[in-house]
Amino acid sequence: MRISEIGELSLVEIVRDRLSPGGARPSRAGLWTRPESGPGLLLGVGDDAAAWWADGRLQVATTDTMIEDVHFRRAHVTGQELGWKALAISVSDVAAMGGQPRYALLNLGLPGETDVAFVQALYEGLLAVAERFGLAIAGGDTVSAPVITLATTLIGDAYEVPVDESGPIASAECRGAPAFRLLLRSAAKPGDVVAVTGQLGASAAGMWMLLSDRSIPGELGTRLRQAHLQPMPRVEAGRCAVAGGLVCGMDISDGLLIDLGRLAAASGVEARIRASCVPVSDMARAAYPDDCLKLALAGGEDYELILVGPAGLVAKVQAQTSVPVTVIGEIAAGQPGAVKVLDERGDEVRVARSGWEHFRGQQWKNDPSR
Amino acid sequence: MRISEIGELSLVEIVRDRLSPGGARPSRAGLWTRPESGPGLLLGVGDDAAAWWADGRLQVATTDTMIEDVHFRRAHVTGQELGWKALAISVSDVAAMGGQPRYALLNLGLPGETDVAFVQALYEGLLAVAERFGLAIAGGDTVSAPVITLATTLIGDAYEVPVDESGPIASAECRGAPAFRLLLRSAAKPGDVVAVTGQLGASAAGMWMLLSDRSIPGELGTRLRQAHLQPMPRVEAGRCAVAGGLVCGMDISDGLLIDLGRLAAASGVEARIRASCVPVSDMARAAYPDDCLKLALAGGEDYELILVGPAGLVAKVQAQTSVPVTVIGEIAAGQPGAVKVLDERGDEVRVARSGWEHFRGQQWKNDPSR
Repeated sequence: MRISEIGELSLVEIVRDRLSPGGARPSRAGLWTRPESGPGLLLGVGDDAAAWWADGRLQVATTDTMIEDVHFRRAHVTGQELGWKALAISVSDVAAMGGQPRYALLNLGLPGETDVAFVQALYEGLLAVAERFGLAIAGGDTVSAPVITLATTLIGDAYEVPVDESGPIASAECRGAPAFRLLLRSAAKPGDVVAVTGQLGASAAGMWMLLSDRSIPGELGTRLRQAHLQPMPRVEAGRCAVAGGLVCGMDISDGLLIDLGRLAAASGVEARIRASCVPVSDMARAAYPDDCLKLALAGGEDYELILVGPAGLVAKVQAQTSVPVTVIGEIAAGQPGAVKVLDERGDEVRVARSGWEHFRGQQWKNDPSR
Repeated sequence: MRISEIGELSLVEIVRDRLSPGGARPSRAGLWTRPESGPGLLLGVGDDAAAWWADGRLQVATTDTMIEDVHFRRAHVTGQELGWKALAISVSDVAAMGGQPRYALLNLGLPGETDVAFVQALYEGLLAVAERFGLAIAGGDTVSAPVITLATTLIGDAYEVPVDESGPIASAECRGAPAFRLLLRSAAKPGDVVAVTGQLGASAAGMWMLLSDRSIPGELGTRLRQAHLQPMPRVEAGRCAVAGGLVCGMDISDGLLIDLGRLAAASGVEARIRASCVPVSDMARAAYPDDCLKLALAGGEDYELILVGPAGLVAKVQAQTSVPVTVIGEIAAGQPGAVKVLDERGDEVRVARSGWEHFRGQQWKNDPSR
């Protein structure tokens, strides 16, 4: 049997069953401390990033791959944009755990005919992300390849809960050891609210513009391109979320509905969102007024964060982070893994989770494992 | 200008100039302790692995890429062999720093027509390495790709010098902080001896057999294949080397002459080796008696360690490690970066560093950056 026949979920299961120890749960208040014994790996396959103990400290780690003609087209990106995006999506995964990115490693595969200036520009893009987020590019490996191939691996620090913030529960649980908090996909509970950072749909609108023959002139076109090719990971918002006590979240890479569905499935809950509350991108609305809600719900590559938790904690994060945080719905026991989109009257709207079909045929992202 | 035109060294320089902070030097006795201030990155591009501080502890990290039809041919490898080799070469880089491998991340690119059984076997190979060397496969990313593409990233611990072993120098220098030791390419000094672990040339002999039309029957053929496709990284020997006080070494991936030349260049010294002392693989000799010395000198992918240091310390490591360690030459001031091969009378023998030309055309490894 071929990979193309078994479907996405089955391949994930082949991997997950063998690689992930699974079953790690935080203590009360969502705090992790190093166990006296047991494996150093805390979280394996299944969240935005892995997490492991380096002595008494908790690190997060993620890796992403971008393949020419699968995730991008050479004609559509500058070297600088490709470098930015490749590293930014890994930074977003660390942000989605509430972590701080520290060290990156890069695998670069290049056809011999690649222009040297393109490669130099690619490094400029990588370095711009590194500078922006205070991380170091520590090393890598460069090889020949039939198409441009990038893999970025990023190691970060989990958020360490300050002693004066952790309160009596933490003190009792941690007995003086450093305590850490992560945003997990699996920690949503009925009664929690669902929020997102920023606005959604601009990246997909930018991709749609690039793939179509109809370019959009002026600043709008420039900003849509930037939204798709130079996403801005929400590291600060992720840190605010864990500092504010949230323990559930992820980033939006494949679209709000798909990703929120993953979070709901990992938590064994149902998510309900109100379409009218979704912060649709002003740019997507200006460029594609008829499709902008769909772009926001199912377009993908937003690299905004989904944050889930008690309304009071989410309000606290809303007040502290520098990016907008919008409550768009809530978590219910319901049907595990379901995401229901409700209209203004509370009736369910049918929206294809996978985005709409006219995108499918041309979609850059083509990941057999998700 | 194209990548194929600028040559290997220039591409490395593009990268190195921008990515590596460089200039980090160990204290006396080759010990590193966390500086009070300064960057967390200790070693960037240019050694077998990067090294960075995670709080007061030193980690090493490396990444390697394998691309179908560049580094391997699908018809020549089983899934299990490919999985083993992909992770083993990263383990070898950690071994080459004297480190202990801990956590691996995997990027896997697969054509849709890839057989599921091949992918399952590939994971078996990865897991066999993980089990053998006590590391955890923490996560990864699986995507569509036009050819099979693997990138393995491995994080490990640097060797921590035990307090009772570090003696008065270390105590004075470290003031109670944990101290670590690494094997660097840049630490060779005139008067040091050059040693290698194991035997050399079997992997290249195995590759030559696989690429030729003439297979070798029986156990010899099986073992040559294994030497090429299932290398055994020298983690234990690397740990013995740093425990024994050595501070200079690397692994042999591109061939003894090329890699020793890199070490000599990084250290600003000349290396002299005696051809008669090189431990030529018994298997390579049995299969290719006329070419076995060349296979040992320039064949590559041995994943044995080059160890360099004072004769007394090398003898100590020789006595303690479970693999053979053979002294093959010495370091002189001489011409920085030169490797001279001497015959039994001490006369220099001319050997092409890059391997012999009849290999070049068919070589799997085709790395534009080295």
